Amino acid sequence: MSINFAKIDTPALLLDLDKLEKNIDDIASFAKEAVVAVRPHIKTHKSIKIAQRQIEAGAVGLTVAKVGEAEIMVAGGIKDILIAYPLAAKPKLERVKKLMEQAKVIVAVDSVEQADLLEECFDPKNPLNVWIKVNSGLNRVGVDPNEQVVELAQHVKGLSGLRLDGIFTHAGHSYAASSTEEIETIANEEAAAVVTSAELCEAAGIPIPNRSVGSTPTFKIAGTVEGITEIRPGNAVFYDMVQVGLGVAKREQCALTVLSSVVSVKKNRIVIDAGSKTLALDQGAHGNASIAGHGFVKEHPEFVIARLSEEHGVIPVEGTVDVKLNDRLTIIPNHACVVANLFETYLVYRDGKVIDEWKVDARGRLQ
Amino acid sequence: MSINFAKIDTPALLLDLDKLEKNIDDIASFAKEAVVAVRPHIKTHKSIKIAQRQIEAGAVGLTVAKVGEAEIMVAGGIKDILIAYPLAAKPKLERVKKLMEQAKVIVAVDSVEQADLLEECFDPKNPLNVWIKVNSGLNRVGVDPNEQVVELAQHVKGLSGLRLDGIFTHAGHSYAASSTEEIETIANEEAAAVVTSAELCEAAGIPIPNRSVGSTPTFKIAGTVEGITEIRPGNAVFYDMVQVGLGVAKREQCALTVLSSVVSVKKNRIVIDAGSKTLALDQGAHGNASIAGHGFVKEHPEFVIARLSEEHGVIPVEGTVDVKLNDRLTIIPNHACVVANLFETYLVYRDGKVIDEWKVDARGRLQ
Repeated sequence: MSINFAKIDTPALLLDLDKLEKNIDDIASFAKEAVVAVRPHIKTHKSIKIAQRQIEAGAVGLTVAKVGEAEIMVAGGIKDILIAYPLAAKPKLERVKKLMEQAKVIVAVDSVEQADLLEECFDPKNPLNVWIKVNSGLNRVGVDPNEQVVELAQHVKGLSGLRLDGIFTHAGHSYAASSTEEIETIANEEAAAVVTSAELCEAAGIPIPNRSVGSTPTFKIAGTVEGITEIRPGNAVFYDMVQVGLGVAKREQCALTVLSSVVSVKKNRIVIDAGSKTLALDQGAHGNASIAGHGFVKEHPEFVIARLSEEHGVIPVEGTVDVKLNDRLTIIPNHACVVANLFETYLVYRDGKVIDEWKVDARGRLQ
Repeated sequence: MSINFAKIDTPALLLDLDKLEKNIDDIASFAKEAVVAVRPHIKTHKSIKIAQRQIEAGAVGLTVAKVGEAEIMVAGGIKDILIAYPLAAKPKLERVKKLMEQAKVIVAVDSVEQADLLEECFDPKNPLNVWIKVNSGLNRVGVDPNEQVVELAQHVKGLSGLRLDGIFTHAGHSYAASSTEEIETIANEEAAAVVTSAELCEAAGIPIPNRSVGSTPTFKIAGTVEGITEIRPGNAVFYDMVQVGLGVAKREQCALTVLSSVVSVKKNRIVIDAGSKTLALDQGAHGNASIAGHGFVKEHPEFVIARLSEEHGVIPVEGTVDVKLNDRLTIIPNHACVVANLFETYLVYRDGKVIDEWKVDARGRLQ
């Protein structure tokens, strides 16, 4: 049944509950079959309600990037959180300490210098759980997966305020892949970076029970590699046009859309009320050639949202088109994670009806 | 005096009060000399406190894009607002009606069809003020500044629920100019589009007392053209790297910066805690060749923030650099308007001290 869009003020963030549930179940089924734990990254949805559904579906805990996100999720009842970010600033670490009273918290470590800064803040009576982040090719944070990881692991082992029991990576460079084969190669390298690092550490006498990989394009491949124990997909809860462009999802799987209205119809263009403050400017996280414009218009697949200003999207047209003022256009965004962060709430719908409104709880928690 | 950044958690949005006041005064001085009214666009700052300062400096009212922004500003005591957007949806018009109980509200009109939809919602006892928006070359919304504008004006004049007394335009295509001469040409065309349209209407017996131009790159040129009565700069309250790239402002005038921290130092790169959820991906609203990377790093002008993921910025480096974990980097954003919209508050500083925290009141008011 098609939802009665005419009554909804725009722009609005629509969440298809059936698709959301299917996406959560898909991840859970994959993980069950591959015998890996799931620790979804909540940067995509920033919603307690969605996080709780992920936990109900079997996730062992959550992944976040920010202490502020962790605080929101712990307040929402989540008990196990990986802050996948190399924290080192004292005010943030004091907040982590506080969170540890209510939940298990793990923090990323990616250098000896950072480990020493953590050590200054945590004491042996209540040590901080840390996982080493390795660089599997994204070349962002992360230690290289060679003897450097062993050196770091040995250093961390010598610090009484830290408790090391995991190694993880994020193969974000898979977003720039130009073929399914390239995604496969990256996924295998991602898993190898973690497994090799863990084995090097274990050969040096340091057990690494947790071996975690991430990234929506790669998790279904990397998650099947022998020795991997956990996956951390984020975007796969919604999917978006970047994932469709990569061949990772079909448009039908995309659970998140932006409802916009036509605000002006001119002889060679249509203007909608969704601009860069609504759809963001992402056209593929690291460059995705198959993205045309700024989102996919479901009612008119032939439309290209060619340019955005802050509150306008411009769709060039030729000849007469069957579109008039106040018509609704539903847009699958290029990058769901940044779009959700621009809205206050999700309008959650099922069977053609909006049945709930969920807060984007951790929206804009930048610190 | 330099502010003690070490105590501020990051990423944070810093507002230099001296620079802000100077930018507000500069606009006011220009307007006084050119004998034009000022109606700043608040999409840049979305702050009641800043809007109030603009009014105190002599602004006759404000410009907004969204009804939600107007509501916030009217609640903050502002009495005169142009909603520079061709509204046509009933729920939004009902909200406008409500606002009219507390403030003078003007709405943009850019087609006969839209005017008829407005007419359905407003009655002759309390007519809606409308200004016709003309297209001066941006090719977004707006009627063409020829006989079409007269046809529209005559149509509006025949509607008893509407009261027409202005024509305005926005020359946003000036953001894509490649030289000062091109900005000058665009600014003169912008003013001509409004003045010519107003004269055509007056020749047809429809007085147009308000003739308003906008756009930060052009307002100081278009505002001096004979027949123009009002300017509506937005970005000029802060300025940013896009304006610096256009030659419209100097870096020293930029009032808004993002304070970030170094979170990882590797042999060929530095990683900071400001990504696309902090700095946005803008590199010039409509393509600005002089922008390098994703913002200007004040402490290290040689740094280029080459890529952003959601919560990381990556700065490639060669050889040894004098940067360590937790060092603060202060970034002038490429596009201030979208960056402010990503934060909850401004940290307002003067004489090396944070003296206040101002809310981004209308943040994310998309409807």
